[in-house]
Amino acid sequence: MSTYLHREAHFKSSHTLRDVVIGMADGLTVPFALAAGISGAVSGSGVVVAAGVAEIVAGSIAMGLGGYLAARGEMEHYESELQREEQEILEKPKAEADEVAEIFQHYGLSEPEYRGVIEGLKAHPRAWRDFMMRFELNLEVPDPKRAGQSAFTIGASYILGGLVPLAPYVAIASAARALPWSIGVTLVALAVFGYVKGRFTGAGAVKSAVQTTAIGGLAAAAAFALARAIS
Amino acid sequence: MSTYLHREAHFKSSHTLRDVVIGMADGLTVPFALAAGISGAVSGSGVVVAAGVAEIVAGSIAMGLGGYLAARGEMEHYESELQREEQEILEKPKAEADEVAEIFQHYGLSEPEYRGVIEGLKAHPRAWRDFMMRFELNLEVPDPKRAGQSAFTIGASYILGGLVPLAPYVAIASAARALPWSIGVTLVALAVFGYVKGRFTGAGAVKSAVQTTAIGGLAAAAAFALARAIS
Repeated sequence: MSTYLHREAHFKSSHTLRDVVIGMADGLTVPFALAAGISGAVSGSGVVVAAGVAEIVAGSIAMGLGGYLAARGEMEHYESELQREEQEILEKPKAEADEVAEIFQHYGLSEPEYRGVIEGLKAHPRAWRDFMMRFELNLEVPDPKRAGQSAFTIGASYILGGLVPLAPYVAIASAARALPWSIGVTLVALAVFGYVKGRFTGAGAVKSAVQTTAIGGLAAAAAFALARAIS
Repeated sequence: MSTYLHREAHFKSSHTLRDVVIGMADGLTVPFALAAGISGAVSGSGVVVAAGVAEIVAGSIAMGLGGYLAARGEMEHYESELQREEQEILEKPKAEADEVAEIFQHYGLSEPEYRGVIEGLKAHPRAWRDFMMRFELNLEVPDPKRAGQSAFTIGASYILGGLVPLAPYVAIASAARALPWSIGVTLVALAVFGYVKGRFTGAGAVKSAVQTTAIGGLAAAAAFALARAIS
C-alpha cells in the first residue's frame, strides 16, 4: 500500500513540525504582545527588552520542560497500563475477550464474524495485550527519545519566535518609536509563519496566515490597552 | 464491563481537567518568572504589574484562541479524512480490505482468523469507514463543542494562575519587597497545584508537586538572572 506507507511517513515527520508550530506560535505572539503592552506603560526600550528576555526565558523553560515532563508522564502511563493489560489477560481472559467483542460490536459486527480474531488473539497473549493497548485504550507505543527532542524543539522555536518582536527594541532606544517597527516585523513574521504552517498541515495557507496574524494582533492590542489603562 | 465503563467515564471528565492543567501550569509559571525577572531590572511595582497584566492577557489569548483554532483544525481534518475514507471504500474496496488485513497481520493474526471481520465490514460500508478512521488513521470522533469549551477553560485557568504571583506586587509598592512574597505564594501554589494534578492524573502526587515547583522556580530564577544581567 503506497498510500498507507506515505501516510505513515507523513505522520512521523509531522511530530517535529508540530513541535515547531507549538513553540513558534506562542513565541511570536506572547513576547510581541508583552512588549507592546509594556510600551504603553514605560518610555525607555531597556525595560521592554529586559521584560521580553525574561518572558522568553520563562516561556521557553515552561513550554519545553513542561512538554518534556508531559511526554515522560505519557510513557509512564503507557508502561503502567501495559502491565495492567498483561495481568488482566492472564487473570481474566474471559472479561478481556468480552472487551474485544464489544469493540467489534460497536461496528455492527456479529459473533461469528469476529470470533476468529478473538481465538487468534488468545493464542498470542503478547499480541493480545498490544491489541488492547491500541484498540481498547487508544494508546500508541511512545518513542523514548521523543520527550527530549520535543522539549528542545519547542523551547528553541519559542526563543527564535520571541526574538523577532524584541529586535526593534534592542536597536531603538525609545519604546514608543520601536513599537511600530516591532508591530511591523512581527505581523509579517506571523503571516509568513501562518502561511507556511497552513501549507504543511493541509489547512488553507491564506486562511492560516490570516488566523495566526489575527491572534497575534488581538493579543498585542489587548495587552497594550490593558497595560496602558492600569499604569 | 464495569471497569470498561469506569475507564470511559474517567477519560471524558479528564478533558476539562487536562485543559485546567494546561492553562494553570503555564499561568502560574510564566507570569511568576516574568514578574521576578522584571523585579531584577526595575524598582517600582507598577511596571511589574503592568507587564504582568500584559503577559496574562497575551498568554491567555494566545493559549485559549490557539487551542480553539487547533481544535477546529482537528475537526476539519477529521471531516476531510472521513470523506476520503468513504470514497476509498467505494472506489478501491480491495485496497481498503488489504489495509484492514495489514492491521490484523500486525498482531500476528492469520487470514482465516480475520476474514470474518473483513466480510462483516464489507457488508456495512459506514461502519467500515468509521473502523478505518479509528484503527487505521487513529482519529477519534471530535466533539464539536470541545473547541469553545477548551479555549475558555485554558484561558480562564491561565488568568487564575497568573493572578497569584502578581497579587503581592499589587499590594506592595516596592518591587524588591514584593518579590519574596510573590516567590512564597507562588511556590506554595505550584506545589499544591502539582500535588492535586498528580493525584488526578495517577502520577505520584509528591513527585508531581516537586516537578511543578522545580519548573516554576527554575524559570523564575533564570528569568531573574538574565533580566538583571542585561538591564
